[in-house]
Amino acid sequence: MPLKLPSCCLYKGGFMISSVSNGRIKQVVQWQSKAKERKKSGIFIAEGIRMYQEAPLQWILETYVSTQELERLRKSEDERARAAWQKLVQTGYEEVSGEVFAKISDTSTPQGILCVMKRPEYVLENMLKKENPLLLILEDLQDPGNLGTILRTGEGAGVDGVIMSRETVDIYNPKTIRATMGSIYRVPHIYTEDLGGVLDALRERQICVYAAHLAGKTYYSDMDFRTGTAFLIGNEGNGLKQETAERAACYLKIPMEGQVESLNAAISAGLLVYEAHRQRHI
Amino acid sequence: MPLKLPSCCLYKGGFMISSVSNGRIKQVVQWQSKAKERKKSGIFIAEGIRMYQEAPLQWILETYVSTQELERLRKSEDERARAAWQKLVQTGYEEVSGEVFAKISDTSTPQGILCVMKRPEYVLENMLKKENPLLLILEDLQDPGNLGTILRTGEGAGVDGVIMSRETVDIYNPKTIRATMGSIYRVPHIYTEDLGGVLDALRERQICVYAAHLAGKTYYSDMDFRTGTAFLIGNEGNGLKQETAERAACYLKIPMEGQVESLNAAISAGLLVYEAHRQRHI
Repeated sequence: MPLKLPSCCLYKGGFMISSVSNGRIKQVVQWQSKAKERKKSGIFIAEGIRMYQEAPLQWILETYVSTQELERLRKSEDERARAAWQKLVQTGYEEVSGEVFAKISDTSTPQGILCVMKRPEYVLENMLKKENPLLLILEDLQDPGNLGTILRTGEGAGVDGVIMSRETVDIYNPKTIRATMGSIYRVPHIYTEDLGGVLDALRERQICVYAAHLAGKTYYSDMDFRTGTAFLIGNEGNGLKQETAERAACYLKIPMEGQVESLNAAISAGLLVYEAHRQRHI
Repeated sequence: MPLKLPSCCLYKGGFMISSVSNGRIKQVVQWQSKAKERKKSGIFIAEGIRMYQEAPLQWILETYVSTQELERLRKSEDERARAAWQKLVQTGYEEVSGEVFAKISDTSTPQGILCVMKRPEYVLENMLKKENPLLLILEDLQDPGNLGTILRTGEGAGVDGVIMSRETVDIYNPKTIRATMGSIYRVPHIYTEDLGGVLDALRERQICVYAAHLAGKTYYSDMDFRTGTAFLIGNEGNGLKQETAERAACYLKIPMEGQVESLNAAISAGLLVYEAHRQRHI
């Protein structure tokens, strides 16, 4: 359900919210802490000057700025600050006191700017349109930081989309958003209730699904990822579910020295998508 | 300064600590939360059954086990649990109540076993003894999870040592220890007060120091890392200090698509050490 905002909602300044019991402030606090509330309203929250600046204009629903940050942006000669100031004038914003901002911020050292955004809606079909797509499929990942890092790394390696099982941690978790460093705006991503169905759809389109697996005999760097490729990445503690691993077309091996049994999920994903990138750009 | 323990310290069971105001319990709580206290005592703490089992016997100073976990280990038919039980009998342990364990644990879902360990002491010389060593040099890394992941990934790729600037986050931070998944026991690591001096020492030994840098023109996968190699990894927010980057023999480039300006420090380190591993094992 998309969020319905009254037309007065984007208040153009001139009035400062200084009470933490203000209704809208309470709502933002709820959104920050509760994945369900965010989902119900169809929104997510991004904090910090960089995340605000990279935010697509048409996604922004509300912007909150602390008095102190507002002053800084208004007066700064810095190019980034001036651009932010112009964007604020364009989108409208709410000025809030430092105390209120500390309340709505998810970080211990708030940057003083935060925006509430409409969630993007992607469809699997569009992720598969490009010739030889490169995809990541995440099953039940639980660490918000890992998920954000995977999006950031995925954008760096040129992935066309990230598909997540229903039990994967909320991609709109504040920690995840922060770890994406802005890639949340640019990497198409979807949750699926039916991971098996998605894997079947990929197979029908000759997109090869690879899983890092103990049964893998070939090192990932000896495989060919230049045609349509999807990498399955499993849960941090338990790896891939057996029924998911069984649907992979190929098992691959990541070499490990010493007594290492597995790598961090984001590291595995990074090695695989960057190997695909290397092969596709030789 | 190594920790001096009285000979009675490794109490062989038969008595349970049930008070959170017990002196030794208070000490463990301090060690968990304060880097300075850990350093002063020359110890670090590892939690969980896996970390306990992989802990080198001669490093273990004290072991604390909750009553519940003790019961489980004593009765379990599971191979891992039986091995842990044997190790407990060998090293001695303190039984503590569930409440006390929750107090000394750094996690919200404690596994019921924790050990206090003597810090290992490594010297740079030994890290450089092997022919064509592979090293990671970390400057002012601040995220404990990143640091732990780098150790884990480094072991996987076969690095011979990790050298850290003085301002790098405490490698004995509980979050770091956890993220290493046991690599803390196996990857030689040192802090240095004089990063410049270390870089000079590496140059003298024909170990090539590489830095990922905007001035880099060659992709990392087109370089040759088969001879002595050290990768410089900078701070998460600010990258490498200029004076450090200037001491690198070579600048390399990690390709980035989209609007990505940099990768997470652990991802960068992972890509580089695994590329070196690939080249060394063709």
